[in-house]
Amino acid sequence: MKKIKTLGIIGVGLIGGSFALALKRQGLVEKVLGAGKDDNSLGLAKALGIIDEVVTIAEMATLADVIVIAAPVNAFEGIANVLAPLLPANTIVSDVGSTKAKIIEIARKVFDNKIHQFIPAHPIAGSHASGPTAAISDLFQDKNVIITPLPENSSESVALIQSLWESCGATVQLLKQAKDHDDIYAAVSHFPHFLAACYMSFMESDPIRKQALNMGGTGFRDFTRIAAGSPEMWRDIFLSNQEAMLSQMRDFEKEFNYFKQLLENKDAEQLYQWLSVAAKARQNWKVIKN
Amino acid sequence: MKKIKTLGIIGVGLIGGSFALALKRQGLVEKVLGAGKDDNSLGLAKALGIIDEVVTIAEMATLADVIVIAAPVNAFEGIANVLAPLLPANTIVSDVGSTKAKIIEIARKVFDNKIHQFIPAHPIAGSHASGPTAAISDLFQDKNVIITPLPENSSESVALIQSLWESCGATVQLLKQAKDHDDIYAAVSHFPHFLAACYMSFMESDPIRKQALNMGGTGFRDFTRIAAGSPEMWRDIFLSNQEAMLSQMRDFEKEFNYFKQLLENKDAEQLYQWLSVAAKARQNWKVIKN
Repeated sequence: MKKIKTLGIIGVGLIGGSFALALKRQGLVEKVLGAGKDDNSLGLAKALGIIDEVVTIAEMATLADVIVIAAPVNAFEGIANVLAPLLPANTIVSDVGSTKAKIIEIARKVFDNKIHQFIPAHPIAGSHASGPTAAISDLFQDKNVIITPLPENSSESVALIQSLWESCGATVQLLKQAKDHDDIYAAVSHFPHFLAACYMSFMESDPIRKQALNMGGTGFRDFTRIAAGSPEMWRDIFLSNQEAMLSQMRDFEKEFNYFKQLLENKDAEQLYQWLSVAAKARQNWKVIKN
Repeated sequence: MKKIKTLGIIGVGLIGGSFALALKRQGLVEKVLGAGKDDNSLGLAKALGIIDEVVTIAEMATLADVIVIAAPVNAFEGIANVLAPLLPANTIVSDVGSTKAKIIEIARKVFDNKIHQFIPAHPIAGSHASGPTAAISDLFQDKNVIITPLPENSSESVALIQSLWESCGATVQLLKQAKDHDDIYAAVSHFPHFLAACYMSFMESDPIRKQALNMGGTGFRDFTRIAAGSPEMWRDIFLSNQEAMLSQMRDFEKEFNYFKQLLENKDAEQLYQWLSVAAKARQNWKVIKN
C-alpha cells in the first residue's frame, strides 16, 4: 500500500504510541510527528523512537498527511478546535475514541464543512499499563478496530484508515450507526470496567476486605486486571457515554437483585439455573482464544 | 516425608484429581482410591491414571489412610455420614471446601467424638474447566492453601495435611477462625465470581447485548473468565456462605450507587478520584505476578 509521508499522533500514550510503532515497523510511514499536552510523555516517546519530532498541534495541522487524535476523549474538542481552521484540504484526521456518538457530534460542529476529512475509529485494545513506555508494535495484532464512517467521508479516506489499521494486524469492522457502537461498547467494555473498578473500590473501603486482598488467587487477578487502567481515560469514556452507561446500570441492578433474592430464599434450583446460563454463555464465547 | 500407603479421593474432579496427580508425581502415595457419585467421572479418572481403583465411600473408609473429600460443598454431609461410623482411629479426613464455618459445624455433628480426625482445608486454585479431564499435576504450584485447624486436631495430623499440600507446590497458611476465612473468601473470591456470573447473565438477557458479546476484547475475556466455572460448585459455595455473601452485596450496592450518582451528576472530579483509588489498589496488588 501507499506509504504515508508524515503521520501526526496527538497523545503519544499506549494507543497512539503503539499505532505509530506498528506502522513504523511495517515501513509505512516516513516520519512521525508527536503532539500533546504532556512534555514528559513527548520527550519519552521521542527517546523511545515512537515519534521523530515533537511539534505543536497547530504545526501538525499543516505538516501531517494523516493525523490521529489518540488523547483522552475529553480532550477531543480542544484539539479539534486547533486543527480545524488550519487543516489543508487533503489531510485526513481520525481518532481512537472509545465512544463515537458524542465525538461525532463535536466533530460536526468543529470541523463543519471539513467534516468529510474526519474518519471516526475505535481500536479495541488496551492494557493495564498506560503512557508511551507501555506502547508496543503488536498491540493491535488480531484485535478488532471499529470504524463508524460518516455519510460525508469519501470511500478513499475510509479505505486509507482501514488499511492502516489492517497493517497493524487488526481486523476492521464498519458500523454505520455510532449509537449502535456506543450501546455495544457500553455493554461489552465500559460496563465491565466499571464493575471491576467498583469492586476494587469496595475492597479498599473496609479494613478486613483490604486485608483480604492478600488472599486473592488467579480468579481475582484476571477479574480485576482492567481496573488498573488509566483513571483519566475511563472517566472520559464514562462521561462521554453517560446515557448508555446509566441504562446498562439499571438493567444490571435487576439481575443483581434477582440473584440476591434467590440467595435470600436459598433457592438452590433457581440458583443452579441462573449460574448455568452464565457459565454456558461464557463457555460458548470464542471470540478470542482462551 | 513419609509416604502414604493408601490415599482416598471422594470426588475425582479438577481439585481432587489434581491433588492425586501431584502426589503421584512426587511418588508420595502408593495407591489412590477414588469414590463419588458419578460413574463416568470415576471411569475417566481411572483411565487417565488419576486413581488406581474405584471403591464405594464405605469401602474407602476402611481402606484409606488419608481421605480427601473433594466433592461440592453440598455433598459433604452425606459423605461424612457414610464415613464417620466406619472410620478407623488412625485415618485422617480432610476436605477442599471453599467455605469453612458451615462445613465445620456439620463435621462436628457428624464426626462427633472423631472430630479430631477431620482437618478442614481450602486450596485456592481453580480453572474455567472442571471434571477429571481438567485435572493437572501442577494446579497447586505457587498457589495458597488455607488450613483452619480445629482445637481438637493433633499437631501431627495438621502437619501431615500441610506437608501434602506443600508437596503439591502450594504455600499453606493456617487461619484459626473459620469465620475469618469465610469473610475473606466471600470478599476476594466468591463475590468476584458472583459479579462475573451476574454480568454474563445480564449480557444474555437482552438481544443487543447478546450480539455485543462478539465484540468483546481481552478485557472482557479476563473479566468474565471465572463465570465459566461449575454451576453446581458455585451454587453450593454461595449457599454455604450465604450470610457473608449477602453482607458483601449490601456493601457493594453502596459503592455501585455512589458511582451512579457521580455519573448522573457528571461529577468529573470525584469520578476521577474514585477511579484513581480503584486503579491504584489494583496496580499495587502483587500477590500473583501479572
